[in-house]
Amino acid sequence: MINKLENSLFICILIAFTLLNSAIAIPLGEKIAGSGNNKGATACSGCHAANGSGLGAAGFPRLAGINAIYLANQLNAFRNGSRDNAIMAPIAKALSAEDIKAVTEYYSGLKSASSAITDPNVSLSNGANVVLRGSWADRKLPACEQCHGPGGSGVGAHFPALAGQHASYIKTQIANWRSGKRKNDPNNLMKTIADKLNKDEIEAAANYYASLDPLKAGLATAKQTANLKIKNVSSSTAQSMYFTPPAYNTYPQGPLGDSIRNGEAIFTLTNSHVTSKAYVGNHQQCVNCHLDAGRLANAAPMWASWPAYPAYRKKNNKINDITMRIQGCFTYSMNAQASKVGKAPDANSIAIMDLKAYIYWLSSGTPAGETKMAGRGYPKFAEPKLGFSPKRGKAVYQKNCALCHGRNGQGTLLNGVTQFPPLWGKHAYNWGAGMHNVNKAAFFIKANMPPGLPNSLSDQDAWDVSAYINSQERPQDPHHKGNEQETKKKYHHGKYDYYGKQK
Amino acid sequence: MINKLENSLFICILIAFTLLNSAIAIPLGEKIAGSGNNKGATACSGCHAANGSGLGAAGFPRLAGINAIYLANQLNAFRNGSRDNAIMAPIAKALSAEDIKAVTEYYSGLKSASSAITDPNVSLSNGANVVLRGSWADRKLPACEQCHGPGGSGVGAHFPALAGQHASYIKTQIANWRSGKRKNDPNNLMKTIADKLNKDEIEAAANYYASLDPLKAGLATAKQTANLKIKNVSSSTAQSMYFTPPAYNTYPQGPLGDSIRNGEAIFTLTNSHVTSKAYVGNHQQCVNCHLDAGRLANAAPMWASWPAYPAYRKKNNKINDITMRIQGCFTYSMNAQASKVGKAPDANSIAIMDLKAYIYWLSSGTPAGETKMAGRGYPKFAEPKLGFSPKRGKAVYQKNCALCHGRNGQGTLLNGVTQFPPLWGKHAYNWGAGMHNVNKAAFFIKANMPPGLPNSLSDQDAWDVSAYINSQERPQDPHHKGNEQETKKKYHHGKYDYYGKQK
Repeated sequence: MINKLENSLFICILIAFTLLNSAIAIPLGEKIAGSGNNKGATACSGCHAANGSGLGAAGFPRLAGINAIYLANQLNAFRNGSRDNAIMAPIAKALSAEDIKAVTEYYSGLKSASSAITDPNVSLSNGANVVLRGSWADRKLPACEQCHGPGGSGVGAHFPALAGQHASYIKTQIANWRSGKRKNDPNNLMKTIADKLNKDEIEAAANYYASLDPLKAGLATAKQTANLKIKNVSSSTAQSMYFTPPAYNTYPQGPLGDSIRNGEAIFTLTNSHVTSKAYVGNHQQCVNCHLDAGRLANAAPMWASWPAYPAYRKKNNKINDITMRIQGCFTYSMNAQASKVGKAPDANSIAIMDLKAYIYWLSSGTPAGETKMAGRGYPKFAEPKLGFSPKRGKAVYQKNCALCHGRNGQGTLLNGVTQFPPLWGKHAYNWGAGMHNVNKAAFFIKANMPPGLPNSLSDQDAWDVSAYINSQERPQDPHHKGNEQETKKKYHHGKYDYYGKQK
Repeated sequence: MINKLENSLFICILIAFTLLNSAIAIPLGEKIAGSGNNKGATACSGCHAANGSGLGAAGFPRLAGINAIYLANQLNAFRNGSRDNAIMAPIAKALSAEDIKAVTEYYSGLKSASSAITDPNVSLSNGANVVLRGSWADRKLPACEQCHGPGGSGVGAHFPALAGQHASYIKTQIANWRSGKRKNDPNNLMKTIADKLNKDEIEAAANYYASLDPLKAGLATAKQTANLKIKNVSSSTAQSMYFTPPAYNTYPQGPLGDSIRNGEAIFTLTNSHVTSKAYVGNHQQCVNCHLDAGRLANAAPMWASWPAYPAYRKKNNKINDITMRIQGCFTYSMNAQASKVGKAPDANSIAIMDLKAYIYWLSSGTPAGETKMAGRGYPKFAEPKLGFSPKRGKAVYQKNCALCHGRNGQGTLLNGVTQFPPLWGKHAYNWGAGMHNVNKAAFFIKANMPPGLPNSLSDQDAWDVSAYINSQERPQDPHHKGNEQETKKKYHHGKYDYYGKQK
């Protein structure tokens, strides 16, 4: 009786356990991570830790919180050899497509703290300099966060999060880009960047990223980002043939210094900064046309504008001071008509005043009245013999630009902060902006795009891709008073202007 | 019968003639001018011509239209020997006080054309340069018209009209000031000026004045004055230790040049210029504090301000750009509250834009961010041991300043154009202007007043006269909101401030 009872009980428990087990079955991704797939892929957690935080001492990367598609791309790269790695190659090959999807989504969803440590002998300030500023002036080296996002958040499937990543891993990867052992970067971007970095910069940047909290990355509000302090950082090397603005960390003390700093924050975060966002009707920022916070020669540097105003401008047929010039940027490039306030900031507004304080400071030492500073605006070059073609330009765009600006030109916004600016559509510059002219945009693109690879496009490609971008629809020209043909006749009769001809 | 009849007729005619003669009796002044006084004074017209236009070939001056008191003063000077003249001395001595009054009023009222001729070998442009510009920078030489009025109109009893005066006479007088043969100038002013002029300048200025139409002098409207063109004039010699602004005649071509020129006119004619007068509530002009059209070192030159803005100002506790700084001048120094518009011009107004274009051009080549240009502002010096006393200052004022600014500080307005600015009273700068501070005004006065005689007052006199001027009543501080004690407490607690303590 008792045995029968025991047997029945045992069977019941067995059934219950089986039922329970099936109810709380471990998902495939977690299973592979914890135990492998029994088909040759060993448990990921063996090297990358159960919480996905990796193992810095051995150079095993943190996987937690990394974009799943990016991780999947890496497994495929191990499979096809574009990442040459003896450990990962057989594991990746042993994973099915379903396995890869499951395990990468699993790791992407983990929200663990970082286990990375930083070398106390390495200057985090120097790291911040590389990560937040880069060194555009002398080497066309964009800041790391230009692509990897604020606080190392990562951006989309192409630019992995680096916050809390192990310094050892970052350093190895840079070495691998340089040596060609790793070559799965889109458009050769990381190879180019890695080649530009020196040993100290690599060490400093890797340690700086390792020091960042991955749970806070990307959550930085505009204000937090604006308040990032970089102290005791050496200035970027001078641009030999161009004017050198004051070094990043040399703001004056006192109220003027505060105004300058705020102006710089407005300049780089225009559509999300508390002082300026009410005047911005799209996802554009000053820095999108004036690279490196308005410092970079041949990228419309602000220090070349300050000494050249007041000046007469055909655009509005009057004398413009720098205030009106800046207001023009808000009106057209930042489409103020669609903003909360509905127009550019007033001349005496804090936004204008702080932007001017910043530009003034950047221009320290420039001689008043100098209208031809070397590096002003974008370098002009002749229209190619074949002219320009949106159709040809589309291919150039999808190959070189879509990675950041999106296949539909929509750009990328992270927590309300523009990471990559839209190039057309309702969040782009409007039809009154200078950039809508095919020639002007071609000049900008050729000299500056993609970041880190200036002058890499042929003249023809630059004109064609500019034509493709500028033949797309964008917000109405504020000059428009209801009749498009009239507006076209009055303001858009140039041959480099698609207004009224756009799709 | 016929004889009797003839006699009666003769008597009748005699009576009629006598009656007629007494009815149209020649006034005393005209009589002396035409026939002398029969007491030793010969007819003035013998040398000075019947219409008072003088005789250039003989060096006899034009008298027509010259201020009567000035002329009387000269006759008295011939009498007492402070004008050493062998021909005029006995004539002047032969005239009674009544004769002098009559004849000088007669000549003063004549409106004849000029008979002066100009030497075709002398450059009138160079003359214009001396007369309209002077040479403040290198020799503290004020423009002649600074005292003699627009177009050589003459100003009051002290500064005779020079339009249409014979060049030979002007040259002789300058020679006489230099030699001491003539010494009836108030405060040694003309002796000082004459000593500073070189031979070419004397020749050019004398011929320039000879060329001017006396019937149009002083009638120049602000606009006409503003449009005076000086061409092909060499620039004033550089101020060796100070920044040298562009030469007067080197405006750029095109709309910017037009804006600069208009800005200069606004700067020098602020309260009468069509572009700016609606914003000016008193009789002040920019040039009254910023001498030589804003060019002069140690007289708050504009080229030292341009590179120093934006800047933090305690006065309003915020960052000010050059626009706000200029607006402050309108608000306080030009008392905009009492103007037609009632406030300073807007940031984007033509008045502000053209003033900025002018200041920008004056500042050509100054390095942005330079806040300590040599010659900026007014040179500071310590308060004297005796402090400052309005009572002592009154005597200094009446001796040195009243000549131009008036015994009651009222200044001089000619046809609506300020010749000498008021220093107190309802047309003076208000209680919010920087100049109302005893120390600041002392600094200005010491370095710049009287024109042509900088640093001629002792430190003590400069402080005392400043105290006298600034202890007088003037328009209310625009900060005032109804309670003078409150305004005083908040804005006027400094020891150099008579606000609330004025008479």
